[in-house]
Amino acid sequence: MKMISGGVCAAKGFKAAGVHCGIRKNPGKKDLALIVSSEPCAAAAVYTTNLVKGAPILVDQDHLADGIAQAVICNSGNANTCNANGIEIAEGMAELVEKYTGIRAADVVVASTGVIGEPLSLDPVAAGMPGVVEQLSEDGSLEACHAIMTTDTKPKEVAVEFTLGGKTCHIGGIAKGSGMIHPNMATMLVFLTSDVAITPAMIKKALSGDIKNTFNMLSVDGDTSTNDTVVLMANGLAGNKKITEDGEDFEIFMKALNTVNMDLSRRIAGDGEGATKLLECVVSGAKDLETAKIAAKSVITSSLVKSAMFGEDANWGRVLCALGYSGADLDVSKIDLSFKSAAGEVALCKNGAGIPFSEELAAKVLHESEIDIIVSVGDGPFSATAWGCDLTYDYVKINGEYRT
Amino acid sequence: MKMISGGVCAAKGFKAAGVHCGIRKNPGKKDLALIVSSEPCAAAAVYTTNLVKGAPILVDQDHLADGIAQAVICNSGNANTCNANGIEIAEGMAELVEKYTGIRAADVVVASTGVIGEPLSLDPVAAGMPGVVEQLSEDGSLEACHAIMTTDTKPKEVAVEFTLGGKTCHIGGIAKGSGMIHPNMATMLVFLTSDVAITPAMIKKALSGDIKNTFNMLSVDGDTSTNDTVVLMANGLAGNKKITEDGEDFEIFMKALNTVNMDLSRRIAGDGEGATKLLECVVSGAKDLETAKIAAKSVITSSLVKSAMFGEDANWGRVLCALGYSGADLDVSKIDLSFKSAAGEVALCKNGAGIPFSEELAAKVLHESEIDIIVSVGDGPFSATAWGCDLTYDYVKINGEYRT
Repeated sequence: MKMISGGVCAAKGFKAAGVHCGIRKNPGKKDLALIVSSEPCAAAAVYTTNLVKGAPILVDQDHLADGIAQAVICNSGNANTCNANGIEIAEGMAELVEKYTGIRAADVVVASTGVIGEPLSLDPVAAGMPGVVEQLSEDGSLEACHAIMTTDTKPKEVAVEFTLGGKTCHIGGIAKGSGMIHPNMATMLVFLTSDVAITPAMIKKALSGDIKNTFNMLSVDGDTSTNDTVVLMANGLAGNKKITEDGEDFEIFMKALNTVNMDLSRRIAGDGEGATKLLECVVSGAKDLETAKIAAKSVITSSLVKSAMFGEDANWGRVLCALGYSGADLDVSKIDLSFKSAAGEVALCKNGAGIPFSEELAAKVLHESEIDIIVSVGDGPFSATAWGCDLTYDYVKINGEYRT
Repeated sequence: MKMISGGVCAAKGFKAAGVHCGIRKNPGKKDLALIVSSEPCAAAAVYTTNLVKGAPILVDQDHLADGIAQAVICNSGNANTCNANGIEIAEGMAELVEKYTGIRAADVVVASTGVIGEPLSLDPVAAGMPGVVEQLSEDGSLEACHAIMTTDTKPKEVAVEFTLGGKTCHIGGIAKGSGMIHPNMATMLVFLTSDVAITPAMIKKALSGDIKNTFNMLSVDGDTSTNDTVVLMANGLAGNKKITEDGEDFEIFMKALNTVNMDLSRRIAGDGEGATKLLECVVSGAKDLETAKIAAKSVITSSLVKSAMFGEDANWGRVLCALGYSGADLDVSKIDLSFKSAAGEVALCKNGAGIPFSEELAAKVLHESEIDIIVSVGDGPFSATAWGCDLTYDYVKINGEYRT
């Protein structure tokens, strides 16, 4: 398996584009993305667990009920959530795709991201549609990625190439963060494409299995958004023997999917609102997987841990504190802890009690932009990894002025 | 019932003092508090639910097993948590109280607050003990309150006077916040004193009943500390007929206790680390009490709601979002929402969808220092209130540099 360029257009038969249609006031910021496949795709999606759901999600649940999709349309600048006519608008977006591309509206996935509770008009989307369709191209992944960004500072795209039965296959994706990010899940929009031949049932199994270890192990700010959507579409153009059940081919597909999703998860965390550091917490030695996951997520979610990381302060007691209130059943007297980065590793706590450490080494370790928080709980063979970011002045600034 | 001055010394027979003993480097910051009663007291305490518990809590659980206490000793600057010899140190503090006051070590409540995982020596406590005992006075509540402060910017003390069977009675308290504050509970240390005659069993019932609606409805940053302790001691000097069971006297006592604890909860929230605003979320119309509580706490805990309040931005969709992911079973289409303060009230959302509102009025409402977030969920007769504060640059600053 190798990482390649191309994002959502790396897989055969996919084109994408992004334009400014006018939902956002700034004409330099793209706000409408379109991704289309030349063929209908087996498709599955997972959505936010928030009871307040964006209108597009209700439409997608309907459109994806048959496991088939062929296009994604997404706007930024308005979440189309808590709007009285939200479903009408979301259906209208799908109908516009049908009008301009011929793809059935029922095979269009709709997504929106931005402010909650502001009315959204179809007019700018209709105005932008001819342009975005005209610009659809096999080089359009990055354009589409820019169009779905909100407070993201970096576009997030990734693709992998692998083989199934001698056939070259691809999975690629684009994602947006970067606030309201919390298991399960985040104002996270992730659009994944593949040319693998696979049934709707197996694609659903692959996606729901993988996100437990990737996007659901990610927190920026503890707020689970109303609009989270991860969609995976596969059009079969790779020509592999169709995946219809568990087996070696499905394993390879799962591994490729995991590589893509893990990479996007890390990118979303590292580009969390205001973030200066990517935090990765690995909890090992747990008696079961759930315990490891709960513990790792608690550390990554703690405002105090996140603030200490921003300040590059080896205030490790806060990690112990976050483990202790996580709800995970842990024996505190068996917990070991260290911080690790490209600059080295510093052990801070052994068997639940502090040990002498070099503040100089700790400062060097914490000065890096990717910090690993390594926890061993000495209770069994299970481990889990969670991703987050530091809490900074800029997070507060971005979110104190979001609507303005 | 009336509010009076005097804090923990408002009740008959209590003296308090606070001194600088040297745990903190700054000689201008008091770091050792002592509160003593002339008589043994019926006493009860509630502690953090964090599995990582400060050593003083383990000692207190032992000392309070008989429902009797006569003194509280508390240091700031070091949490005495995750230290290999923590219990020895905490017991040593109680023994120092016995040595200098004659009160049995087993009747001393010990508390510590500050950095986790740094060794604590008994030496400064021993050095400070003669001074703090000498300064014990009926005017000493504020001194003791200053000595338990960490990042608090304001001392927090309150007292009420009321009558039981014609006898004048008192309950008073001091508290510290102001970070690691989250249900259940907070690096919250609260020391409550009373001169009411009441049995240990009834004092325990009163305290555990009341905190569910006061200190456990309070969040500053979502981090449940390792050292939270609320202690209530009553020495009986008011001369009332001893409260031994439920009844009118117990109801009056509970009401007085609730007044004190509600006041301290609001003060802790309003003085949360870096806070510029006290937030109060009232959820009414819930089908049961638990639903109302879960919903109110979720709103008060949301980093996005807190950041928007700091920015005085009427981004009400974030409140809906926090209600939606709270875990409370709500019908989103019945939710009404308004923001209210001394400047007025602005309705923002009706039946789960946005309504037109005056941005000018919203700006005025949110410019105040106490903001009420009023939620009605249209499902029944239950309501609950939670307290929190805004999320500010200073929270990040304080916690990025806490150890330095």
